[in-house]
Amino acid sequence: MLRFECDYNTGAHKKIIEKLTETNEEQTCGYGMDEYSIQAKKLIQNKCQNDVDVHFVIGGTQANYIVISSALRAHEAVISADTGHINLHETGAVEAKGHKVIALKSYDGKLRAIDVENYCNMHFTSDDMEHMAKPKMVYISNPSEYGTIYKKHELKEIRKVCDKYDLYLFMDGARLGYGLMCEENDMTLKDIAGLCDVFYIGGTKIGVLFGEAIVISNDKLKPDFRYFIKQNGAMLAKGRLLGIQFKTLFENDLYFKISKNAILQITKIKKALISKNIKMYIDSPTNQIFPVVSYEQMKYLRENVAFSYWGKEKEEHVIRFCTSFATTDEQVDELLEIIKNMP
Amino acid sequence: MLRFECDYNTGAHKKIIEKLTETNEEQTCGYGMDEYSIQAKKLIQNKCQNDVDVHFVIGGTQANYIVISSALRAHEAVISADTGHINLHETGAVEAKGHKVIALKSYDGKLRAIDVENYCNMHFTSDDMEHMAKPKMVYISNPSEYGTIYKKHELKEIRKVCDKYDLYLFMDGARLGYGLMCEENDMTLKDIAGLCDVFYIGGTKIGVLFGEAIVISNDKLKPDFRYFIKQNGAMLAKGRLLGIQFKTLFENDLYFKISKNAILQITKIKKALISKNIKMYIDSPTNQIFPVVSYEQMKYLRENVAFSYWGKEKEEHVIRFCTSFATTDEQVDELLEIIKNMP
Amino acid sequence: MLRFECDYNTGAHKKIIEKLTETNEEQTCGYGMDEYSIQAKKLIQNKCQNDVDVHFVIGGTQANYIVISSALRAHEAVISADTGHINLHETGAVEAKGHKVIALKSYDGKLRAIDVENYCNMHFTSDDMEHMAKPKMVYISNPSEYGTIYKKHELKEIRKVCDKYDLYLFMDGARLGYGLMCEENDMTLKDIAGLCDVFYIGGTKIGVLFGEAIVISNDKLKPDFRYFIKQNGAMLAKGRLLGIQFKTLFENDLYFKISKNAILQITKIKKALISKNIKMYIDSPTNQIFPVVSYEQMKYLRENVAFSYWGKEKEEHVIRFCTSFATTDEQVDELLEIIKNMP
Amino acid sequence: MLRFECDYNTGAHKKIIEKLTETNEEQTCGYGMDEYSIQAKKLIQNKCQNDVDVHFVIGGTQANYIVISSALRAHEAVISADTGHINLHETGAVEAKGHKVIALKSYDGKLRAIDVENYCNMHFTSDDMEHMAKPKMVYISNPSEYGTIYKKHELKEIRKVCDKYDLYLFMDGARLGYGLMCEENDMTLKDIAGLCDVFYIGGTKIGVLFGEAIVISNDKLKPDFRYFIKQNGAMLAKGRLLGIQFKTLFENDLYFKISKNAILQITKIKKALISKNIKMYIDSPTNQIFPVVSYEQMKYLRENVAFSYWGKEKEEHVIRFCTSFATTDEQVDELLEIIKNMP
Repeated sequence: MLRFECDYNTGAHKKIIEKLTETNEEQTCGYGMDEYSIQAKKLIQNKCQNDVDVHFVIGGTQANYIVISSALRAHEAVISADTGHINLHETGAVEAKGHKVIALKSYDGKLRAIDVENYCNMHFTSDDMEHMAKPKMVYISNPSEYGTIYKKHELKEIRKVCDKYDLYLFMDGARLGYGLMCEENDMTLKDIAGLCDVFYIGGTKIGVLFGEAIVISNDKLKPDFRYFIKQNGAMLAKGRLLGIQFKTLFENDLYFKISKNAILQITKIKKALISKNIKMYIDSPTNQIFPVVSYEQMKYLRENVAFSYWGKEKEEHVIRFCTSFATTDEQVDELLEIIKNMP
Repeated sequence: MLRFECDYNTGAHKKIIEKLTETNEEQTCGYGMDEYSIQAKKLIQNKCQNDVDVHFVIGGTQANYIVISSALRAHEAVISADTGHINLHETGAVEAKGHKVIALKSYDGKLRAIDVENYCNMHFTSDDMEHMAKPKMVYISNPSEYGTIYKKHELKEIRKVCDKYDLYLFMDGARLGYGLMCEENDMTLKDIAGLCDVFYIGGTKIGVLFGEAIVISNDKLKPDFRYFIKQNGAMLAKGRLLGIQFKTLFENDLYFKISKNAILQITKIKKALISKNIKMYIDSPTNQIFPVVSYEQMKYLRENVAFSYWGKEKEEHVIRFCTSFATTDEQVDELLEIIKNMP
Repeated sequence: MLRFECDYNTGAHKKIIEKLTETNEEQTCGYGMDEYSIQAKKLIQNKCQNDVDVHFVIGGTQANYIVISSALRAHEAVISADTGHINLHETGAVEAKGHKVIALKSYDGKLRAIDVENYCNMHFTSDDMEHMAKPKMVYISNPSEYGTIYKKHELKEIRKVCDKYDLYLFMDGARLGYGLMCEENDMTLKDIAGLCDVFYIGGTKIGVLFGEAIVISNDKLKPDFRYFIKQNGAMLAKGRLLGIQFKTLFENDLYFKISKNAILQITKIKKALISKNIKMYIDSPTNQIFPVVSYEQMKYLRENVAFSYWGKEKEEHVIRFCTSFATTDEQVDELLEIIKNMP
Repeated sequence: MLRFECDYNTGAHKKIIEKLTETNEEQTCGYGMDEYSIQAKKLIQNKCQNDVDVHFVIGGTQANYIVISSALRAHEAVISADTGHINLHETGAVEAKGHKVIALKSYDGKLRAIDVENYCNMHFTSDDMEHMAKPKMVYISNPSEYGTIYKKHELKEIRKVCDKYDLYLFMDGARLGYGLMCEENDMTLKDIAGLCDVFYIGGTKIGVLFGEAIVISNDKLKPDFRYFIKQNGAMLAKGRLLGIQFKTLFENDLYFKISKNAILQITKIKKALISKNIKMYIDSPTNQIFPVVSYEQMKYLRENVAFSYWGKEKEEHVIRFCTSFATTDEQVDELLEIIKNMP
C-alpha cells in the first residue's frame, strides 16, 4: 500500500547504503573513535561553528533525554510546549531520568517567549520557590510536531528570556532539514548553533538508517558527554556506522538536497487538497500537512493510502500526510490521482 | 504577630508534648519496632480495618513520593489534578523518583472521575500507547489544596474508573482530620480505607510535631514497604517518637476533637468576613478559606496578621486564612476585631 | 593493521548487508511492528520455546539495564560477579536506573551458586534486612567476560538458589553464539530458555550491524516490556532493520555457522601460542584468549597487530586476542606468521 | 532491660525537651526560616567557619544521599570504604538516586588515601574511562562504623588525592561528637570544615530527638541546596524543631560535654572487659567497642543486657556495646556488675 503516514517508513538514501556496503569488511576501532566518525564531525562543525562538539546517537528519544539529563541537576526541570515530543510521546523518558517537564500551553506546536518569561517570573519571584522544580532548560522542536517552524526573531526572543533567567536552550531537530529547506525559513545551521546551547540534526527521518547528530555550542555542556552516551546505552559498538552515514549525508550537501525533495513533494499534495476545497488544520510549511476531512473522505482515503489520524475537530477529522527524503514522483502522482477522485 | 497563614506554625498538642517528656528517658529499640509504634498502629487499624498495614513517616512529601514510587513500575505514571500538591509544590519529587505526573485540569482542587476516564480511554485505545507513560495510579488530596472535599459518591465514581483501568487510588490526607470533621463530610476512615488502595492520615498539620500515618488496604502494595521507607530516608532512628505521638492522637479520639476545633474557629472567621461583604474565591468547608479582597484591604490586613497570598483575581486579590488544632478563641477574637475594622 | 582486539571491528555478515540493500526502498510501518520483525521473532521462538516473548534492542548495555530495571522494584538489587559487564563497563547504567549491583567475588568470570546462596542467606536472616537493598535478580554473562562458559549443571545449581530465594535469573548473551558453538558447551537455546527467566542472544558481536534479541520466558516479566524499550530510547523508528537482520541470522542456522568460525579461528591462534610456550591466563574455550607475554613479546606484537591489554600478572602481561564471525583464514594466517617470529 | 545495643535508644537530652516544651505554643514561620534555625546556624558557623552554609535535616541516610546526589552529575560515582554506611546499610539509597558506590576494601572501617589514589589512577589513565562511572566524591565516616577515627594527617592525605583528581571530600559525622571528644582525636570542627568540602554533625545519636547539621564549605556545593532538601522529603514543615534543638546543643558547648560522657562511660566498660581477659576485635577509641566473646559468654550476656551482634570470628563472636550522651553511671555500674560475673 501507498504510505504517507510518517517520514521513516523506508530505509536509507541509496548513497548511504552504498557506503555501508563498500566499507563493510574494513576493520576499525569501535565506539565512534574511528576515522569516519571524526570526518563526519568535522563536516558538521564546518556547517555550524568550528568549536562545537558533535556526538552521534541512534535516535531522537535518546538524543532528547541524554541532552536534558546531562545538562540538569536533579532539582532542575525543562520547559516544553505541552505538544512537545518529550511531553507526549517518549513514555516519560525525561521524568524517568528524574526531571519534571514543565508543559506550557501551545497553540501551534511552538513555545512562545512570553509564556516562558511569565513562568520564570512566577518561579523566581516566589517566596517558596524551593518547593517547585527549578526551570533550567527550554526545549523546543523545530520543525514542531505540527510542522511549524521558528523564525529567527522568535528564536532570538526565546534566547533573551533564557539569558535573563539563566536557562539552557535546546532544539530538537528530528526534522531539522525539512525546516531549513522550507520556504518560510530564515535561519542557517550557523544561526541555530549561535542561538542554542545545544541542538540536534535529525538523520533518522532524513536519509540515514538511524542516527542523530547532537551539536553542543555551550562549553558548560561539553565535559563528559561521552559518559552519558555510554551510560544510556547509546554508544554504538560499531560506531563507524554513524560516522559513515553522517559523512555521506554532509558531503556535497546531500542532507539539504534530499530535505528539499520532501518539501517539493508535500507542496504538490497540499495544492491538490486545497483545489478540492480541503482546509488545513494548521498552516505548516514543512513536510507534514494536516488536512481536515469529512468522515466519508477519510474512509475513502483509508482504502487507498496510509496516513496518520490526528484527532476530531468538531464534526470533521484531522489527518496527517508526511513526505520524506525518499518520497518519489511516482508515489505522489499516485496520491494526487487518489485525491482527485476523493468524494 | 498573629498568624493565620498556615496550619503548622506551632508545635504539638500539649498532650503530645507531655507524653514525649514522660517517656524521654525510657530505652527502646529503634526504627519503629517499639511497643508504642505497635500500639499506635493497632489504634489506627481499629479505626480503619483490621487488616490494613500502617506505617509512620515524617512528612507529607515523603509520604507521597514513597507511596507512589513503591507502587509504580518505572514506565508507570500517576494522574493528579493540576492543582495537586505533588504536581505543584514538592519540587518534582515524584518525577525525581522517575514517574510522570499526568496533570488533569481541575476547577476546584478536585479531580473528576470523568476526566480520569477520558484520559485512560485515550491512552488504552491508542495505537502507540507504549510511546506514552502508562497511567497506573490516581492521586487525590482530601481535603484538596483549595479546602474542598470529596463526597462519598464522588470517591465511588473515581474508584469505579480505577477498577475499570486497573489503577491504584491514593488519597493524600495531609489535612484529613479537618475534612472528616467538617459539616459537608459523609465519610469515615473505614469508608476511605475501603475505597482507596492506600491513603495517609496527616499528623503534622493536626496535632503532632511531625508525622503521617500511611494506611495500606491493597495487599499488592504491602510487601517490602519498610525497605522503601528506609531507602528514602524516612525511617526515624528513634521511631518511637512517631509511635508515641500517634498513640496519643488516636486514644480517646483526640485527633477528631482537635480537628473539630479548626472547623469551629474558621467558621467564625468566615462569618465575620461575609458580614463585611467579602466574597470567597471558592466555597471551602474545611480549615482553609480564600477571601477575595481589595488591595487596600489586603494592605490593612497585612499590617495586623500573617496570611497567605494566593493570586490575583481580576482587580482583586485572593488570600488564604488557615486555622488549626492549635488555634485559640483568643487568637480568633483578635482576628475578628481586626476584620471588623477593615476598610 | 591486522586487528584481533575485539569482536565488533567490522560491519555485518555479507548476507545481512545484501538483505538490507534489497529491502531498502520498501515501505513498512515502524517501531518493530513490521512483518520482518514478526518473522524474526518466530524463528527465535522456534529455537527456544514457542511461548517466550522476543524483543529486539540495539546494544548490550541497553539490553542489560532495560531487562534489569523492568524486572526490579526500586528497592531491589541485582547480584553479579564482580567481573560482570554491568558492574565494570557500563558506566553505572544499572545504578543510574536506581538499582544496586551486589558484586560477589569471581575467580574466572563466573558466579558460583554457593556465593549467591551465602549472600541471600545473610540477607534474609538479618534482623535489619530492610536496611540493605533486597537481592531479587542474578545476572550472569555466558560466555563470561573471561571467555569461560557455564555448564548445564552449574546453571541448574544457580537456578535452584534462585528458586529458593525468589530471584530472577538473567543471562547476558552478548557472545552467546560463541558459547553455544564451543566444544565444552552442553546446552541448547531451549535449555537456556528453560533455566533462565530472561536472557538475550547477542547479535552485534555475531553477524549483524547492531542488535540483541531479548528472550523472556517468565510470564511475570512479559507485560509492558515495549514501554520500557521506548522509555529507554531503544525503540528503533525503522524497527524493521532489526527484524531483517535477525530473520537472516536465524534462517538456515546462519547464527550458529558463523559463530563456529570464530571458534575454529581462535583455536588455531591458541595452538600457535602454546607451541611457543606461551601460557594462558585463564582456560577459555570460546572466541577470546588471554595469553601471558613478556614485555618484549608484547612490544613486538603491538607493532604488528591490534589486541587488548588486560593487565599485569607479576612481571608479565595479560593480553587478549578475539576472533569473530568475520575473521578470515587470511587474517589468521598472517597472525600465525607473526606469532611464529615472536621473540 | 538494660540496653547498650546502640546510641539512639532514648529520647533527647533533657535541656532539649525543656526547650521544645517551652516554645511549643509559639507561632513561627515554617520550613526552617524561623529565628531559632537562624540562630542555630550561626552558632555552628562560629564553631566551623563563618562562610560555611548550614542546613538541618532529619536523619543520617537523608543527609548522605542528599549531599551526594546534590553534588554529583548522573554519570558520577562516590568512593567509599566497603564497610561504609552508604554501601551497606542504607538500602541502596545512593544508587536509588542514580549513583554507583565504588566500594574499596577497608581493614578498620577507614578508607586509605593510597587506595583512592590507585583507583583514580586506574580510571583516569584508562582508554575506555567513559565505560566506567566517573569517581567524583570520596565518602568517609568519622568515626567509622568500627568506631575508629581519622587523624589529621590521614585526612590531609585524602584531601591531597581529592585535589589531584578533582574529587569532593564528604565526611559522614553521624557520631562526630564522639570522635571529637575521644582521646586520640587531634582535629577540631574548624579543621574538618577546612579539609572537607561538606560534612555533617550528627545530632540523632548525640542529644537531639532527631537531626543532622550539614555543613558546606565548598562554594560549588552551596547553590540550591534547599531545593534538594525539599525534593527529598527532608524539609520539616515545623522546621524550628531542628533549630531549637541545635541551638540548645551548641549553646554552652552542650554537644561536646554530652559527647564526652559517652567516652567516659565506654572506657569503664572496656576496662572491665579487658580485666576479664576479653579481647577487642578492633581498637576503637570512641563510643563503640567490639569485644570478642565465647558462645557461652555471649549467651550469658544476652540474658542480662541488649547489645549488637557483629559476626563470627573463628570460633568466637564479635559483639558491640555502645554508650551515648544519655548513658548514666547507674546503667554502667549495672553492666560492670554483669561483666564481673561473666563466665
